[in-house]
Parts: sequence; C-alpha cells; structure tokens
Amino acid sequence: MTKKVLLDCDPGHDDAVAMLLAQGNPELEVVGLSTVGGNQTLAKVTRNALGLATAFSMTDVPIAAGCARPLVRQPQVAPEIHGESGLGGVHLPLPAMTLDRRHGVKLIIDTVMTSDPGGITLVATGPLTNIAMAARLEPRIVERVAEVVLMGGGQHTGNITPVAEFNVHTDPEAAHIVFHEPWPVTMVGLDLTHQALATDEVIADLGAVPGPVTALIMDLFDAFRAAYEHARGFPAPPVHDPCAVAYCIDPSIVETVPVPVDVELGGHLTEGMTVADFRTPPPADCHTRVATTLDVSRFWALVHDALVRVQAGAR
Amino acid sequence: MTKKVLLDCDPGHDDAVAMLLAQGNPELEVVGLSTVGGNQTLAKVTRNALGLATAFSMTDVPIAAGCARPLVRQPQVAPEIHGESGLGGVHLPLPAMTLDRRHGVKLIIDTVMTSDPGGITLVATGPLTNIAMAARLEPRIVERVAEVVLMGGGQHTGNITPVAEFNVHTDPEAAHIVFHEPWPVTMVGLDLTHQALATDEVIADLGAVPGPVTALIMDLFDAFRAAYEHARGFPAPPVHDPCAVAYCIDPSIVETVPVPVDVELGGHLTEGMTVADFRTPPPADCHTRVATTLDVSRFWALVHDALVRVQAGAR
Amino acid sequence: MTKKVLLDCDPGHDDAVAMLLAQGNPELEVVGLSTVGGNQTLAKVTRNALGLATAFSMTDVPIAAGCARPLVRQPQVAPEIHGESGLGGVHLPLPAMTLDRRHGVKLIIDTVMTSDPGGITLVATGPLTNIAMAARLEPRIVERVAEVVLMGGGQHTGNITPVAEFNVHTDPEAAHIVFHEPWPVTMVGLDLTHQALATDEVIADLGAVPGPVTALIMDLFDAFRAAYEHARGFPAPPVHDPCAVAYCIDPSIVETVPVPVDVELGGHLTEGMTVADFRTPPPADCHTRVATTLDVSRFWALVHDALVRVQAGAR
Amino acid sequence: MTKKVLLDCDPGHDDAVAMLLAQGNPELEVVGLSTVGGNQTLAKVTRNALGLATAFSMTDVPIAAGCARPLVRQPQVAPEIHGESGLGGVHLPLPAMTLDRRHGVKLIIDTVMTSDPGGITLVATGPLTNIAMAARLEPRIVERVAEVVLMGGGQHTGNITPVAEFNVHTDPEAAHIVFHEPWPVTMVGLDLTHQALATDEVIADLGAVPGPVTALIMDLFDAFRAAYEHARGFPAPPVHDPCAVAYCIDPSIVETVPVPVDVELGGHLTEGMTVADFRTPPPADCHTRVATTLDVSRFWALVHDALVRVQAGAR
Repeated sequence: MTKKVLLDCDPGHDDAVAMLLAQGNPELEVVGLSTVGGNQTLAKVTRNALGLATAFSMTDVPIAAGCARPLVRQPQVAPEIHGESGLGGVHLPLPAMTLDRRHGVKLIIDTVMTSDPGGITLVATGPLTNIAMAARLEPRIVERVAEVVLMGGGQHTGNITPVAEFNVHTDPEAAHIVFHEPWPVTMVGLDLTHQALATDEVIADLGAVPGPVTALIMDLFDAFRAAYEHARGFPAPPVHDPCAVAYCIDPSIVETVPVPVDVELGGHLTEGMTVADFRTPPPADCHTRVATTLDVSRFWALVHDALVRVQAGAR
Repeated sequence: MTKKVLLDCDPGHDDAVAMLLAQGNPELEVVGLSTVGGNQTLAKVTRNALGLATAFSMTDVPIAAGCARPLVRQPQVAPEIHGESGLGGVHLPLPAMTLDRRHGVKLIIDTVMTSDPGGITLVATGPLTNIAMAARLEPRIVERVAEVVLMGGGQHTGNITPVAEFNVHTDPEAAHIVFHEPWPVTMVGLDLTHQALATDEVIADLGAVPGPVTALIMDLFDAFRAAYEHARGFPAPPVHDPCAVAYCIDPSIVETVPVPVDVELGGHLTEGMTVADFRTPPPADCHTRVATTLDVSRFWALVHDALVRVQAGAR
Repeated sequence: MTKKVLLDCDPGHDDAVAMLLAQGNPELEVVGLSTVGGNQTLAKVTRNALGLATAFSMTDVPIAAGCARPLVRQPQVAPEIHGESGLGGVHLPLPAMTLDRRHGVKLIIDTVMTSDPGGITLVATGPLTNIAMAARLEPRIVERVAEVVLMGGGQHTGNITPVAEFNVHTDPEAAHIVFHEPWPVTMVGLDLTHQALATDEVIADLGAVPGPVTALIMDLFDAFRAAYEHARGFPAPPVHDPCAVAYCIDPSIVETVPVPVDVELGGHLTEGMTVADFRTPPPADCHTRVATTLDVSRFWALVHDALVRVQAGAR
Repeated sequence: MTKKVLLDCDPGHDDAVAMLLAQGNPELEVVGLSTVGGNQTLAKVTRNALGLATAFSMTDVPIAAGCARPLVRQPQVAPEIHGESGLGGVHLPLPAMTLDRRHGVKLIIDTVMTSDPGGITLVATGPLTNIAMAARLEPRIVERVAEVVLMGGGQHTGNITPVAEFNVHTDPEAAHIVFHEPWPVTMVGLDLTHQALATDEVIADLGAVPGPVTALIMDLFDAFRAAYEHARGFPAPPVHDPCAVAYCIDPSIVETVPVPVDVELGGHLTEGMTVADFRTPPPADCHTRVATTLDVSRFWALVHDALVRVQAGAR
C-alpha cells in the first residue's frame, strides 16, 4: 500500500528534486501540493510548482497557493541560491493545469480531515507557515496527521546564521508552533542534508538517463551547483529537500534519533535556531526526532530510480 | 447611515457591556461576532457570547467561534477578574440561537470580502488572534477594512505586567501582525480605559433603568467590581471594552492622537508591551492612533442609552 | 552641615551646568569627580572636566578618569548633541590641575570607604559604568553610600529610542547593577528633566550675571540650544544633569515617588528601558524613587545663585 | 623556559585537578591564583583554594579572592556536582598560608602589568567575572596577556541547558567581554572535556601512586564520580578543568581550530550559549580557537606525572 503525502514546498531547486522523487517513487502517492513564500515569493514558487508538476506529469495532483509571507517576521528570499525566478537556470514548460482554487492552508486541512486518521503524512520543504496556520485554524488535524516530516533546522549546523537554517529562520514562529504540537515531527535538518551532495559522480549517473526530464534536472543541478559554490563555497551542493521525501519512502535510509526539539524565538545570535536537548535520554513520550545519518548511495539510487520512472511517464 | 461593525471578543464582563453598547446604539449595526480564547477558554467565552446575545436580543447576528489559543504563546486566562465561567456572578439565559458553522476567522474574512470596501469596522476586545489569522489567510481584507479599533495595550500603563496589557500580552505575535499591517488601527488602551470607572454613581444611574437586562448588568457590575477590588485594588473597576465601541459610535468621545506603535516580542520585562514613539511628530502616513482622553459623562450616557434601548427590545 | 557628593559625569553641556551648580551651592561639598565615556570618549570628557573645574575654581577636587567604555555594549557617543569635543561651542581654559592618578572606580571606592557610613552621595550624570564597577569590585560601598542620585532613564519618556534614555541605554548592564543593589537610588529621568528647559527667559536671566564664567555658560547654552533644536526639534533644550544635583541640594525642588524600577536588557524595541511598576503601592522596602515634578523657578534660581557664587570665586 | 600561568578558578573537584596538574608539571609556573564565585560561593571556593594549595605545596603562590558574584545575573552554584562545601567528600588540610590582601582582579592586573608583554597566560576554570573586570578596569592587560585559555562553553554541547555550559551560563556578560576583547582566546569547552573521563582504569592508575595527596585525589574522584552519575547520568565523570591546563602545557594534546566565537546574552533557550561560526573558513585575524580532540592517554599521563611530582614535593 502506498503512503499518502502532501507536499508543502517553495520550489526551489531542491524542492524540485523532492517533487521528482515523490512523484517517481511507487511507495508514495502525492495527494496534494501547497506552496509557501520562501526561497522566492509566493507567486514565483507557485508558478514553479505548476511548471514542475507539468514536467513531471503530476497533472492530477491538486496544487494550491498558500501563505505569501511568514506569520510575524518580514519575508526573506534566497536569490543568491535559487535565482530571481526561484528556479534559476531551469526552463519550465507552460503549466498544463490550473491552480486549485482553495488556499493552501485549506487544502492541507481538507486533505487531512477527509482522509482516514493517520492517513496523511505532511512533508514540508519550505518555511512552516502553511502547516502552522492549518494547525491553528483546524486543531483536529494534529491528531489525524500520521507525521510531519520537514526539511529544516539542524541540531549542530546552520546556514543562514551560524546556528539557524533558512526555512526555520524565515518563519521561526511557525516552526515553534509545528514543533510544539504533539504530532510526530521528524526534522531532516542540515546535519543530514549536508551529506546529500550532488557530486560529479552523482550528476553523471543521473545524466545518463535519457530524456527531457533529465535535461531539466541537469540544468537544475548546473545552476544549483554554481550558486552554492559562489554563495557558500560548497564544491558540491547539498540537495536538502528530497532527503525528507526519502525518509518517507524508507526510514532506514535516513537514520533518526528521538530528542526534544524547541525553536528559539529571541536571542541576538540564535533567532530561528532549533534547539535539541541531547543531555539525557529522551522522555518516553518524545514526539520529535532528528535525522543524523544518510545512506548516501541508497538515497541517490532512489532519486535515479524516480527519474527513470518519471521520464518514462513523461514520454 | 449606520456603521457596520464586527465584534471580535472574549466575554468577559466588560465585553458584555461592549456588546450591550454596540447592540443598543442606533449608530452601529453589529453584522457579526467572533469569539476568541482570552479572558476564559474559547468554549466558555463562546457560551457566554451566545447567552449575552440572547439576553440582548441580538439573535440575528451570526456568532462564530474562532481561535482557541494564541498563535505562539501558551494560553493565559483571567479567572481572578472574570471568574471560572468568564462571566462570574452573571446568570445567562439559555441561548436562543445556534453558533454559525463557520470558523470565526472565516466569518471575519467573509464579512469583509462580501461588503463594500471600507464597509466594515473590526472592533476587537480580546486577544488579536482571529484578526491576525484573518489578515494572514486573506491579505486582501487589510485594504477593505475601514478600521481596526481595539481595546488593548497602553502607551504608559500596564496591568498584567508593569508595561503590558492582558489582551496584547496574551497574544503579542497576533498584535504585532495587526499593528504592522497598513490598515488604520486605533488602540484604545489602558491609559484611556482606566478613565471609564464604574463608580457608585454610574452604577446607580444604570440600575435605575427598570427590567431584566438591567438586573443582569447589575449582577455583572457587582461581580466585576468585587473582582477588580480584590485582585488589583481598584475601588471602582475600569470598564475597558465598551470604550472601543464608544469610539466607533462617536470619535469625539474618545480623543486620539496619531503615533507609531509597535509591539515588543522579546525582552525580560517588556514582552507584549505596545511601544508608542512620541519623540517626534508622527509621519504623514502614520496609520496608528492611540486613545488619550475619555469624555466620561458622555461615555456613560451612551451606555445608559443603550441599556434603555436593549431593555425595550428585550421586553 | 554640607552634604558631601561625588560627581560621576561625562561633560557634556548639561554635565557642565551640573558641575557649576554643585560647586556653587553652599549646601554641597564636591569631594571627588570621576569621568566616564558617554557623551564623548573618555579622553574628551576628562579633558572637559579638567577645563571646567579650572573655570569653576574647583581646583582642589580630585578628578579621576574612569571607564572608557560600557561593560558589555559597544560605546555610543552623542556628537549630534555635544559636538566633536563633547563641549562644542565652549572654549575652556587650560587645566590648572592634573588628573588624580587613581582610576575613577578606585576614587569612588576610596572616597566612600574612607568616609563615615552614609557620608557620601553619589551623583551620576553619565552612563553608570563606574558606579557599577565600584559596586562589584568593593561590594561594601553599597551599604555605606547615602544615596545614588542619577540622571538617566525615564518612567514614560525616551530619547535615544522611544522608551530608552541615552545614559541607561549606553550601558544598560551597568544600570541594571546599580538599580538592583539595595542602596537608595533616585532616578532623575527624562520625565523630570524635560521640565528643565533653558528658555529665552532663563538664559537672559543667567546672562545678566557679569563675568567670564557667565560668558562660558552663555556659549554653552547657545551651542546646546542649537544642537537640541537641530537634532531633536526642541525649541528650548532640556538641561538634564543639574536636576540631579538640585535634588541633592533640596529634595523639595524635585518631587519623587517610591516605585520599583528595573532595567530591560533584552527586547527588540525596549533595550535599556527603565521599567517602573506603578500598578500597586510600592513595597515597604522599596529602595528606588523616580522624579516626577520639578519646581522650575526654584531650580533655575539655584542655578543662578550658583553662577553668581562661582563667578565671585573665579575672580 | 617555563610558561607563567595565572589560575582563575572556583575549586571545585575538577579545579582541584587543574591546580594539581599546573603545580606538578615542570613546564608551567603558577605565578598567581585568583578565586571567583561559581561552583560554590566565593568564601567556600577561596577556602578550598587555600586548602588545596597547602596540600599541593603551592604555598609560595599568591592567592587572592576575586568577585563574589556575576556581573549582572544572580549567582548560581552547583552543589549537586560539588557538594555544599564545593569540594564534597574531600578533607582538606588547614591552610598553611594566608590570602593575598589584594582583590583577585587586582592580582590579575598587577601580575600582567608587572610581567613582560606576552609573559602571562590566564587560565580560567570558573565563571569569567574576574578576567572581564580586569579587562575593563585596566584595558592594557589585553595586549600584554599571552593568551586566555578557558574551560567553558562548547561548540555543540551544553550541560546546564541544552546548549549552554555552567561557567559561561553563570556569567554570560563576563564571557561576552572576554571573547570580544582581541587577545588570543582558546575555549576548552564541553566538546573537548567530555573526552576526559575519569574511568575506572584512569582512577586505578592514579590510585597506584602512593601517598597522602593520592588519598585526597581518590576521595575527590569518588565524590565527583558519584555526583556526576547521580545528577547527570554519566558513568564516568568528565574532568573538565585540567584540560585547559593540559593545553597550556602542550597544545598538541588538545587539538584546536580557529573559529569566531560569540556569546548569546538573550534568548529564551540559548542564554549563555557560545556560538561558533563554522560556516566558512575563519578570517585571517580570528583570535578565538575552540578545542576539538583530546589525546586522552597523554592527558592522563600528564595528570599522573603531576601527581607523582606533587606527591614527592608534599612529602
């Protein structure tokens, strides 16, 4: 039986790979996709989501635009990584479908409330604004969601600040809400995703898959690699977001440990930090986990396999 | 022509007087009422709203339950002021109507979006959670609302802390959102409402109006006065919330000045403080005002008049 | 019997008037003067202190240079108010004396520890760095000092931020230390000092005193008035620092009330705010007072009288 | 040539081992010892310092009592680790010497200012209050000190909170001062010291050295081990403080990397955290280093050797 996932994302180069992996893996069924302002403005990431869904033959998935900005803080976008379009270097097809008329937050609520309890996994690869809003607007989703799997934060690593990661730092209040609700939350943070590097070998391997989707993915990696090298000095870019999807497909690929996690909302140096408490064994009712170790080869094999399948479907 | 107001409230003794004043004044038309967790839990204040609406013959006003808790902070309630029921000492009739099936946030959005631009004034007398959620979920309400008039905050006065007022302190992130959106916001804070004291003379004057609504109001003042004296040492209790309604009826009763206002979200001593900047003349585009001086006798005359009218309607 | 005061200051135009008032009033004996980085760098304010002491015939008062910078924060100076020299527009005589070889903090400690218990009043008109350092280095001064009278803070008024005053904001950690030690502290803040305006009438009255000290004081007021008008839009400048000295001379000139005061060290909007709690009557052991009302005419009469006496001594 | 070190400490079981190591190693000369309130009150840790110095034959080292409390925060002590005496389980000899009459801060200043530039290394194993006070009172020490080596903080590990270490958390403002001054600072934090575990084997090895100092050290480890197991669940206790001394003796035993370090003074979850920025290569003028890897066997060999030498001297 497949696992039903709703993707909440802000594509974004690595969000695109997350969409590809979710769509191309037979274990998952993408039942909805909501967008959120993050890597770029809501308008841009939503246009990107429609274009990517078209390229990846996800035309039957409802796609809804969510929140345009964080709950409290001013928006911050990441053109230095994702370009002015949010998918710099990538040429997208014209969308073959239209946006769902519902708000992204409503799509999340409807999807969860009309499914069986425990039937939906929320996979978030952008700021957590939509999911936080949904939890506040319809608190009953908290006990119905199977799990929230999020790319964001980090137990010992930051990128936008020494100790904070972009998604959580962009909307720390939303992250605070998500981590404090009692649903299972798995944080796939920078400590994990910095293991998912798109090396020359990885790219060559994916590039060997023939077809137009591969061409799009190759353009994507070219731009992402150049941006990450220029902006942050990485020789090979960390492909964050599909790691969260990989965990949904097979938790044995992403090792996790239970640990209490909280989000710092104040501080001069630490705003938006995810604070994990490793001092003692976690309490029995610990509902949060953090990802520690990636099975790198199996991860990229999953991505390769998904590319092959999506390519086949796209023909 | 009447002014259409939507009340967002957490009754609460002074919220009850605000409802009475709004219902009984011919200048205003109450087009909706949303409830929010604040003085007591959402369940309790919603039950109180229905009972009060029944007592005040507001049976045609849609009443919808909104957010049960603040955006980020843990809820705090005020039983020392409002009792365990939220309306301690008051016996309410059984509700003569049912709740609107919509969420309070949806009622706000629907009411604003289906009215003419500038047609609706939002009057908030509880934590600002619902209004903040509405502004994030449907940002177009911001330019359509005529004004947000809120009881909360204070330019030089606090109650729950030395410098913070209960409603803003309960959900400072929501207040931050409301004050930062560019709609006109009038803050009727403690500096104003501590002028609206229910003295012996005031109570005697209201008590002279014959009828069952007066009896309810007398019970209400008895309990409110005892609580305020016991908990905070006030010889006569400040009746905060109807001051915001009075401003809607006639701005000349509540003097206001334009001044930039922001909300402190951090700080060890100042969380939830409304920070007004009086150092220089306000900028030309200043969209926030704070209330400074109450015309006390005209205020109580309005309340008296409303009681008479509601009493007449209730017979 | 005269009251012995130690001045801790950062001259500064209004510090200069404070020195004049302290030196020229027969009720006070200035037993020491320490300087602190504040309005300008330590080197500049120390040079100013020596020059002013020479002009005012304070040549027998030991003057020691104290801390060059705040405990934790980066220094901030106020050239927009006090000019590049710290006494813009004023021509000082060459110093007729040399600096005391002790550190300013040591001068404070020595002065207090070698005097009778209760024999010394500390009057601070700059950031509180020296006094805080002294209290930490020699905690026994706390019970020996008669009172700390400080110009700084404000109960409802700010200048450097909407709610913070320059001296406290410059070194809030030092202010926190001073307010938390159990000695009597009287805060002469902006709510008081904004009543001490150097109007045309005040200046004309002082200017009528013949002699060279008057000429210096007239230059001082000219520059101070121009700076305050240009930088902050005041038609007449508030002459803050001598208000603290006036309180030492005669507390009936500066009305004060007991109230607990704390200092905000965090906060996005409120760092360096002095938070006074007026909600309830002060506790019986309240050791802090804030100044509320200035007897303006008696205050300026004191300054006038001091100018006459110093002028006489300076001949 | 020996390296001259001044120990600033709050003994404390592991401070005691640090004293032993410093005294017993021929590469170091302890030229002064200042005490600071931390693990226990100043009175207790000062008494312990005198008793330990007597037991270790350090009777010619000037010992001065420093600051009794942190700059700003309320004191916190650690009786759960160090007992009510600060050296629970240890029987100290009567002191064979008297305290230096100078304040600990003065001892630091005098020692540095009367030595050659670069002649003194400050080794701090308690809260950094004394060193911060010295830097503020006599700023010229900053360029004269060879290096500040401190046990405190951690790049990825906390003990008193999830992300803060006891010494830095006790006086974060002092730590902020020390890390911000431009002298070389080496942070020997929890990431390093949690490698210095007093295992059964370590204790057996040390216990084999005959003599009364060994007996004292064995009592010390018994108590420390029991406390750490009970309070924090460690099977073998981390012996923090001598790691800083070991680095002074031979930097090759404690691997360090240059990285900018700052101290969080605000935050709800992160107060007192040392924030190291590993995102990019350190700037060329980076003056801070953090310890990463301990050569465990060489470390304990140094301690063993010191015990043998001190034991010999103690006979």
